[in-house]
Amino acid sequence: MAAAAAGPPPPTPTPDSAITLPENSTRHSMFVRIRLAGKSDVPHIHKLIHQMAVFERLTHLFSATETSLSTTLFNSPPFQSFTVFILELSQLPFPLDHHYSNPNYTPITQSINLDVPIDDPDREIFRSDGGFVVAGFVLFFPNYSSFLAKPGFYIEDIFVRESYRRKGFGKMLLSAVAAQAVKMGHGRVEWCVLDWNVNAIKFYQEMGADVMQEWRICRLTGEALQAFGN
Amino acid sequence: MAAAAAGPPPPTPTPDSAITLPENSTRHSMFVRIRLAGKSDVPHIHKLIHQMAVFERLTHLFSATETSLSTTLFNSPPFQSFTVFILELSQLPFPLDHHYSNPNYTPITQSINLDVPIDDPDREIFRSDGGFVVAGFVLFFPNYSSFLAKPGFYIEDIFVRESYRRKGFGKMLLSAVAAQAVKMGHGRVEWCVLDWNVNAIKFYQEMGADVMQEWRICRLTGEALQAFGN
Repeated sequence: MAAAAAGPPPPTPTPDSAITLPENSTRHSMFVRIRLAGKSDVPHIHKLIHQMAVFERLTHLFSATETSLSTTLFNSPPFQSFTVFILELSQLPFPLDHHYSNPNYTPITQSINLDVPIDDPDREIFRSDGGFVVAGFVLFFPNYSSFLAKPGFYIEDIFVRESYRRKGFGKMLLSAVAAQAVKMGHGRVEWCVLDWNVNAIKFYQEMGADVMQEWRICRLTGEALQAFGN
Repeated sequence: MAAAAAGPPPPTPTPDSAITLPENSTRHSMFVRIRLAGKSDVPHIHKLIHQMAVFERLTHLFSATETSLSTTLFNSPPFQSFTVFILELSQLPFPLDHHYSNPNYTPITQSINLDVPIDDPDREIFRSDGGFVVAGFVLFFPNYSSFLAKPGFYIEDIFVRESYRRKGFGKMLLSAVAAQAVKMGHGRVEWCVLDWNVNAIKFYQEMGADVMQEWRICRLTGEALQAFGN
């Protein structure tokens, strides 16, 4: 997975000439990009969060709208507050697009080879600027360790659309956050997992994460928060 | 506890005249203030975090210094990033001190009555600007719920010094964070508790918090973070 974060630079775009695919390409060669999201991505992010709520059978807790997301996200420089990375796929190499350049972040691009082509019935719904397809996202923000006196990142959501699962894209998103944490000298990256999701726990432990068995999250929300806060 | 956050305004200071104590005061009447911390509080905050590490028997994980805390805290407006509230006690009413006024936060003050006086051997070490005594702190920062499309607060640390425990000061600090969350229209306040700390769990549940039994925190840190991020 380290290769995802430290992948080769994107090939020079040659939109009007034949594309030279990497030597080890097959017919199912594709290109992946992880870039910072912005307000123009909110319609896709809203759909992805809703799909996540459906997947987790928690749609009764889902009340986000495009407007509320747009109001609360992307109001601060990336990595200082709530930050979203978008994972996109393309049949052709990604152009060196300055539209997505940011003084704080250079998109990660990588070529991949798949055994079978991806069948994505929602392709048109998730078509993004430039004709690419949005396949997943990660939402994270700074947290703080007072013992280390260092910031870290907390990953709130990591989601890959159904057609794109079991291909390493989730790990690629996680790795992109970890790489950014290392780059910024952060002390930790943390996230949550359900205790019955043994496959996920095994996967996280294999990549070196500690699963903190003794800690429980306490949550004060809704009317209880209103009552206690008043 | 709601009274802590919505307590009476501080009496007008009368430093050179007799103090009129509240009607229901006893000989052990005291005054409490919760205010925003700043860089000048770092020496006290450092000592408090170290005491917390000793209390949790985790001093082997403690590497914060006054310099590293000062570098990483109080670089953003309060509530937008890592934020610290300090809890102070005073024998006399707190003056209406504009030194601690902030456009974003008015200190909470309250008078309390104790059955027995507080015996604090570390009083001089924790003497703060104005001659008050620092008794505890809470460190928190914004988090985000994508289902609600709303920010919230995550409480990383809440700590009251030994001499001041079992007097409601912890709940007062928690309540101050909840009140600020309500004021800002936030959706949640979250924190962690150890699963064997049944008294704390009962206490949190009684105040309306949900203890999420199924979720586990995953942490990538140290060499594992470096390896995965590279």
